[in-house]
Amino acid sequence: MAARDAARDAVGLGLLGFGTIGTGVAKLLQRNAALIRERLGCDLRLVRIADVETTRDRGVDLAGIRFDADPEGLVDDPAVQIVIELVGGTDVARRLVLRALERGKPVVTANKALLALHGKEIFEAARRAGVDVAFEASVGGGIPILRSLREGLAANRIERVYGILNGTTNFVLTEMERTGESFEVVLKRARELGYAEADPSFDVDGIDAAHKLTILAALCFGAELTFKEIPTEGIRGLEPVDFEAAAEFGHRIKLLAIAKQRPDERIEVRVQPTMIPAQSLLAKVDGVMNAIAVHGDAVGPTLFYGAGAGAFPTASAVVADLMELARELRRGRGGRVSPLSYRPEALRPRPLVPLGELHGRAYLRFTAADRPGVLSHLAGALGEHGISIESVIQKGRGHAGASVPVLVMTHPARESSVRAALDAIDRLPDVTARSLLVRIEEDL
Amino acid sequence: MAARDAARDAVGLGLLGFGTIGTGVAKLLQRNAALIRERLGCDLRLVRIADVETTRDRGVDLAGIRFDADPEGLVDDPAVQIVIELVGGTDVARRLVLRALERGKPVVTANKALLALHGKEIFEAARRAGVDVAFEASVGGGIPILRSLREGLAANRIERVYGILNGTTNFVLTEMERTGESFEVVLKRARELGYAEADPSFDVDGIDAAHKLTILAALCFGAELTFKEIPTEGIRGLEPVDFEAAAEFGHRIKLLAIAKQRPDERIEVRVQPTMIPAQSLLAKVDGVMNAIAVHGDAVGPTLFYGAGAGAFPTASAVVADLMELARELRRGRGGRVSPLSYRPEALRPRPLVPLGELHGRAYLRFTAADRPGVLSHLAGALGEHGISIESVIQKGRGHAGASVPVLVMTHPARESSVRAALDAIDRLPDVTARSLLVRIEEDL
Repeated sequence: MAARDAARDAVGLGLLGFGTIGTGVAKLLQRNAALIRERLGCDLRLVRIADVETTRDRGVDLAGIRFDADPEGLVDDPAVQIVIELVGGTDVARRLVLRALERGKPVVTANKALLALHGKEIFEAARRAGVDVAFEASVGGGIPILRSLREGLAANRIERVYGILNGTTNFVLTEMERTGESFEVVLKRARELGYAEADPSFDVDGIDAAHKLTILAALCFGAELTFKEIPTEGIRGLEPVDFEAAAEFGHRIKLLAIAKQRPDERIEVRVQPTMIPAQSLLAKVDGVMNAIAVHGDAVGPTLFYGAGAGAFPTASAVVADLMELARELRRGRGGRVSPLSYRPEALRPRPLVPLGELHGRAYLRFTAADRPGVLSHLAGALGEHGISIESVIQKGRGHAGASVPVLVMTHPARESSVRAALDAIDRLPDVTARSLLVRIEEDL
Repeated sequence: MAARDAARDAVGLGLLGFGTIGTGVAKLLQRNAALIRERLGCDLRLVRIADVETTRDRGVDLAGIRFDADPEGLVDDPAVQIVIELVGGTDVARRLVLRALERGKPVVTANKALLALHGKEIFEAARRAGVDVAFEASVGGGIPILRSLREGLAANRIERVYGILNGTTNFVLTEMERTGESFEVVLKRARELGYAEADPSFDVDGIDAAHKLTILAALCFGAELTFKEIPTEGIRGLEPVDFEAAAEFGHRIKLLAIAKQRPDERIEVRVQPTMIPAQSLLAKVDGVMNAIAVHGDAVGPTLFYGAGAGAFPTASAVVADLMELARELRRGRGGRVSPLSYRPEALRPRPLVPLGELHGRAYLRFTAADRPGVLSHLAGALGEHGISIESVIQKGRGHAGASVPVLVMTHPARESSVRAALDAIDRLPDVTARSLLVRIEEDL
């Protein structure tokens, strides 16, 4: 009874992982403690932290906080009522999250990879235990996009979602466009600025965005998580000339995570560089910022914009989740109805639309010897596959025989036809490098 | 017991007001009934509608719905578990909302005027009754901005909010800029397109935006509603030349609802035409669309964009509220902790910053006789009040003695000084019309 009374004044939190984000969460809990109490009616009290590295000074006042390298001890500690998982990775994190759920403790996590790979197991464990897993910080950093889908737009059939979900790639694309520099040069600068990891493949190959898209698809469509099925293409293949062409065609290039619902209940999901109209709001999202454009059948087009990463923006989302879970705990419950938009029993696998079935305009970059007649060969090969050209840009004619880019905007065509045409074209003797296809999305 | 079991399968709704929005709500409940059931786990069943006009066909299937002109009967009907107030106005609506709350029934409303004028009375009645008033649709139409402030950004000290909250005025401003036409000409077109009322003053004089700002200030700052105190300026004073000048200065003009928190706990609230940098995302919000830029201390800058009006976007927000309230009812509760971000007991009146204390750059339009020496008189008067000029545009010199606009961008200055300078300038013999001041906001 005494414990119960104490819980009315404070909810005890345990933090797994005291890195950048964990430090941000601890600092935010301390800095805005009074405001949190005014809104929530009780304190959120960080009582315990576990991390393998226990000596570094993170600039956090640790008075009253037990800090050691014992994550299991933290999860099992009766003073810890909510577990915050910021360990990262999918192995230790999975084990600790499941352990917390088994002990009936709700969990807050920012770990998109964990949810994309083990979401089904984790949500089922949460349901069995009757407690919550909250994960607002896993997509879009500080942008409250998951809550907006789960609650604010809950009355809508979500028709399509376009997300700029990875700040590193959006920074690289913005800079390539601004400076005309190559991918490698800009990536190097992104590393120096701390916007890209030493091994950037997780970001620039679209894997991080695909993890997040897996979570969005579950929220939007009640689709069971299918990370491995998501066609994912990164930004390594883009060259400065592609940004010039996009601008001339009135477009910009963004790495988009796309999910669409078809009338036949199949869904379209993919991560890929995409040309979008320069006048669309999403095209104006520059640098490391994130944004998600959501189109619902009732609300129409919406857009949610903010910082997709960083210690404090991510902590903003983590602490919002903590406040919601603490409110539920104080009402005597560990769980809401469902952490997703749909009740767990309404989730189901959804058949995906194969890429070949997509239909739309495309941007094509060919690299061909600068000889008379080349354009006619390219146009002929496209025509044979039923693809008609809307406009062409032939870039700077060099010395005879040098390779030059030929940049084509097609009329709407079926993706399988475009791919077949590209295969045929790449076998032409005049074509000196692999051709590039960037899809165009207009319906933002 | 039978009634309780029935409530597990459906929650009964009563709709007050069967106009445009009410019809949208009824249609959305019918169209997305299956999806709502999948997400919520029960039906939302519209059991009763009341409106003074009972004969017009709204294209809604009324099977199983009692429809008459008896709003009190609806509120008192035991089959009605949640009351939807879409009557509009502040007299009848206030009476019916209070009646519903007294009967222990939660209420969903889209009525910003009602909340801006009688919010305190209504929230206190709700608290006494231990039930909820939900009002997502009252600000930003379909944009889930209130939920985002109340929950998604709950860990943040909200530092500033800039809202494009009125679609009619944003349409007029966008069109004036695009076409160079006058306010009157564009307003006429807005009326023809159905974007403006026969009496547009509620929109174009900023009153509607001020109502919504009252609600935002309560959510952001825990400020008790103070509609009458909000300095409000509409868009009637703007002329085509102002949009040209804004463009030359790299800015655009938007009617913004602004709320800022000062370190001394005072708040700054106002509705007024404002110049903002053309490159900011908010400046790209065109036509009838709405957007709210929110800056939180942890999350940094965010933006929420969508349709601020219209039957289905508004219905999207109303039905989201219904789903949340129905979920709470099925858990055996009528009320959340607070419909605002803050607990009711944490709300308090907040001192406002007088306009004269504002400090920033300003755009000034003078109308003066086209004579040599006029600019030196204007600059002299500004200089006497300590205001220095950043740049000047003198528009098309006509025949000698005709009036021409002189457009000035100032360096940062105190508003009281700028006002004093304008008063002095408007008394100069060369000045032939009242000068205009448009504040500039940079910190978006």
